[in-house]
Amino acid sequence: MTPPRFAPIPAGLPATVPFIGPETLQRRRGRPFAARLGANENGFGPSPRAVAAMRAAIAGIWQYGDSTSFDLLQALSAHLSVPAGALVVGEGIDGLLGLLVRLMVAPGDAVVTSEGAYPTFNYHVAGFGGVLHKVPYRDDAEDPAALIARAHEVGARLLYLANPDNPMGSWHEGRVIEAMLADLPPGCLLVLDEAYAEFAPAGAVPRIAADDSRVIRMRTFSKAYGMAGARIGYAIGHPELIAGFERIRNHFGVNRVAQAGALAALADGDWLAQVQGHVAAARNRIAGIATGNGMAALPSATNFVAVDTGRDGGFARRLVAALEEDGIFIRMPGVAPLDRCIRISCGPEPELDLLARTLPQVLRRL
Amino acid sequence: MTPPRFAPIPAGLPATVPFIGPETLQRRRGRPFAARLGANENGFGPSPRAVAAMRAAIAGIWQYGDSTSFDLLQALSAHLSVPAGALVVGEGIDGLLGLLVRLMVAPGDAVVTSEGAYPTFNYHVAGFGGVLHKVPYRDDAEDPAALIARAHEVGARLLYLANPDNPMGSWHEGRVIEAMLADLPPGCLLVLDEAYAEFAPAGAVPRIAADDSRVIRMRTFSKAYGMAGARIGYAIGHPELIAGFERIRNHFGVNRVAQAGALAALADGDWLAQVQGHVAAARNRIAGIATGNGMAALPSATNFVAVDTGRDGGFARRLVAALEEDGIFIRMPGVAPLDRCIRISCGPEPELDLLARTLPQVLRRL
Repeated sequence: MTPPRFAPIPAGLPATVPFIGPETLQRRRGRPFAARLGANENGFGPSPRAVAAMRAAIAGIWQYGDSTSFDLLQALSAHLSVPAGALVVGEGIDGLLGLLVRLMVAPGDAVVTSEGAYPTFNYHVAGFGGVLHKVPYRDDAEDPAALIARAHEVGARLLYLANPDNPMGSWHEGRVIEAMLADLPPGCLLVLDEAYAEFAPAGAVPRIAADDSRVIRMRTFSKAYGMAGARIGYAIGHPELIAGFERIRNHFGVNRVAQAGALAALADGDWLAQVQGHVAAARNRIAGIATGNGMAALPSATNFVAVDTGRDGGFARRLVAALEEDGIFIRMPGVAPLDRCIRISCGPEPELDLLARTLPQVLRRL
Repeated sequence: MTPPRFAPIPAGLPATVPFIGPETLQRRRGRPFAARLGANENGFGPSPRAVAAMRAAIAGIWQYGDSTSFDLLQALSAHLSVPAGALVVGEGIDGLLGLLVRLMVAPGDAVVTSEGAYPTFNYHVAGFGGVLHKVPYRDDAEDPAALIARAHEVGARLLYLANPDNPMGSWHEGRVIEAMLADLPPGCLLVLDEAYAEFAPAGAVPRIAADDSRVIRMRTFSKAYGMAGARIGYAIGHPELIAGFERIRNHFGVNRVAQAGALAALADGDWLAQVQGHVAAARNRIAGIATGNGMAALPSATNFVAVDTGRDGGFARRLVAALEEDGIFIRMPGVAPLDRCIRISCGPEPELDLLARTLPQVLRRL
């Protein structure tokens, strides 16, 4: 048997994956987690109206989904006051980021992001032969000035920034992002990952015209809308950029049940407000648990809290492993100095109660 | 505003899409179709056990799916008597074909397929800069000898063949496919699209070792299992080839509800057998309707029937349009001489009754 001869770009890629999922960890430890607080999933769940719409849509699952996601695009257009031509629906932000990188980045092209920011974006850039340039965080936040400076230096095609940020939960005011646009090098597109926008203070969401060709914004139904397993999200950008996705996207790739669920979820503003309230309360609760255990919660505009252990990455890694052993799934930033922190997702009371009981025991053990 | 500067490959792609979906056609005509018989969907639907499993899984949709699709891989491994390492689960065959082309085809690489075969495969090849070489059908079937000869001529990296074939419904005996493997040029991988394998006579499915590095087989839950809208399928290939998908696939891209549904569907062999029976009966019914209207049904090993109108492509196109006007969605092959045919998907009795009533009226009108 001759081994497969991959095309040059994939031939040069490592076999590593961006994340190990909680199901894999559960199989390794031989028992399920009692608290699933690691993937920034939303344990408060989707709107009951979305649940009902999805259950009803199962009956029609023998049909492919609408390849244009027409109804959802119309609803998003009305909801966001953005023309439908400035919107594309895709298989979550992960899927859309992959398409965007493919659309914009040729092998050898420069891309700028922050050291410790979203690994799946980096995975896509490497996957299409782009060259990543990374800028350190500054005060636990992505550093707009340094990102812009680096983008000029390397002639970046894309500049990635998540606002609010993952994994730190920090955020910039909308006007900071707006100011970045004016300073972008020509031909560089800002990839603004707004996965957590619905949890952020109003001022943190920049006001950007839908036909601004300098930026593309990514949103998702995975976080505030509680539908991570449905794999549905959208991007907002200049209509000519958005039209580019039609050339390469998997046209019938969005799950039909996810389309129905997203449509219903979007219409249930009351549920969203309730989730936002639960998440804010859970952030406070997590901060209290952190303080009670001699650690410091960082301010968060997301549905998770980065907790500064006051020690180093080695300690934080042992803490994550020990919590995992005791049935609590959390994650942590991958690089120093962010990796002095652990990252805890907001979840319902029982899961946080368990965290409150388990954390002191684990800390004593370490 | 400067227009977006796409990377060279996408910059050169047309804005055309492989298929226009029935929802788009419905919006154009302003009313829903009364019979949806165009996309080879399976109107007999998924197993009630799969439906129940999917309904139950909605409660957990706030969680990402298992990135490894572990349970489904284990079940497929047992079902197919193939090691799990020879299997990868993805977002339907369309998604898996895109990944495969990306994994194997560098810009300028030659790929061989049949003139009139699956457009979405061609879309992916063009989308990654591959160069398509097409071989005509012979007697309404893909032509193994001509495909192999062309693959040698052009030094193909991939050779695509669907068995049974879409859009004609024809098939080759498994031993014909097995013989092709021996004749492939070195370094050329056979992409064997078996989307319709469950509808084919047993002899049409080749016996190929799971670790045969000359071929990758694509299967889906969209057709016989009635879950097109769920977007889930799998590929069988040499473990080293399959491992390559880990480098580029969207690891959390498979819908969690689809995973649960596929697992349950796979376990319900009785339902599959029932669907196979319904489909066989529907093929006969469609053949009868064709004959009754002075047309000839081609033999089919799939859940659709190509019906020879006895006229040319222009006539067939008018017939498809007229049926569409009267509420019946069907499709037809895209190129001559296949386009003398229309393609009718097997569906439940009421839809075929409507076809039986409508077709003579439409033919009189043309």
